[in-house]
Amino acid sequence: MRVAELSKRTGVAVPTIKYYLREGLLPPGELTSPNQARYGDEHVRRLKLVRALIDVGGLSIAAVRDVLETMADSDESMYEVLGTVQRNLGADLSAGDGEAYEKASRIAYELIERREWQVKTGAPQLEVLTAALATLVELQGEDLLELLDAYAEASERIAEVDIDYTRRGDGRAGAVERMVIGTVVGDAILSALRRLAHENEAARRLRSG
Amino acid sequence: MRVAELSKRTGVAVPTIKYYLREGLLPPGELTSPNQARYGDEHVRRLKLVRALIDVGGLSIAAVRDVLETMADSDESMYEVLGTVQRNLGADLSAGDGEAYEKASRIAYELIERREWQVKTGAPQLEVLTAALATLVELQGEDLLELLDAYAEASERIAEVDIDYTRRGDGRAGAVERMVIGTVVGDAILSALRRLAHENEAARRLRSG
Repeated sequence: MRVAELSKRTGVAVPTIKYYLREGLLPPGELTSPNQARYGDEHVRRLKLVRALIDVGGLSIAAVRDVLETMADSDESMYEVLGTVQRNLGADLSAGDGEAYEKASRIAYELIERREWQVKTGAPQLEVLTAALATLVELQGEDLLELLDAYAEASERIAEVDIDYTRRGDGRAGAVERMVIGTVVGDAILSALRRLAHENEAARRLRSG
Repeated sequence: MRVAELSKRTGVAVPTIKYYLREGLLPPGELTSPNQARYGDEHVRRLKLVRALIDVGGLSIAAVRDVLETMADSDESMYEVLGTVQRNLGADLSAGDGEAYEKASRIAYELIERREWQVKTGAPQLEVLTAALATLVELQGEDLLELLDAYAEASERIAEVDIDYTRRGDGRAGAVERMVIGTVVGDAILSALRRLAHENEAARRLRSG
């Protein structure tokens, strides 16, 4: 198909498609003349993935490129790819210092230990967790421990279905793509469901007095 | 305290504090001379809240102002405030159209019905959910229904502890503040925990073969 048809099928404007081509987010089409290229279904699919990462996941062009490069790198094991992709998809909260941060760091490590999670020390998501916990400690004190275990328990259940979902992907590339989509789109779905569940829970309690 | 001391206690640079004052994110201090003002503990607390909304929640200045205005508006019931604040804290995914969107809309409504959630039709978070589901439908087909119920079940448990946590706030203002912080920081914590739980689950399965 021509670029106009690719645009029509994906809802992405032609100048945006050309921008993605220049930025390497989309592989070049097959040249049919010096100024025209032909695109295939793999371009449709890739474009939809790129839009999901940008629109739903809020990723930057650079982050999308990193994720796509990791997805394409077939030397790494599935487990390694999972780690690398997760790092690129994570929130960008950096390590802090001070009393609240130290307290939060202790709370995070105790949680990992209590739940016997096999997590690498220095995992970037552990830093994100610690930074978010530090904010909570600073604003609300330590009145969050029971909340944290309920969150961790819910996360364990979610991770189980997530990994099952990932594994049903078609081959290695399919599994990695599922993982990327599931992580990014899954965050948006979970965030929306949590708010809807809040509304439900508040309405329920309001009614019961 | 002077603005320099306020800056020192919160880690927010003086020009940024002045910007927040101009933008109305921070109430003015008490003037002690035409060019100097005195700030109190409520300014420290407010600044930390603003930084949490911006740094952890990724909110824009305009969204922070909306949230703060709703928090201050004491005419609304707690339940109304919860709704308004949630709208401002939600992801910004707008309604779509096309086959995938219609399919996603049906999936979302069926989920709400199946779980007997009391949610207003046209709730903005329902649109966010639908838009995210539409992306998933488009990229992966409908192979997501069991995943969705597991997510919803986890969200119900999370919402229960969230509402308990909110209610422990000191009075109405305290409860609203807890809700805002819990929603924004809670999202970051849940997202980090989900990724750590992925890592744990993958390591566990890798080991067991």
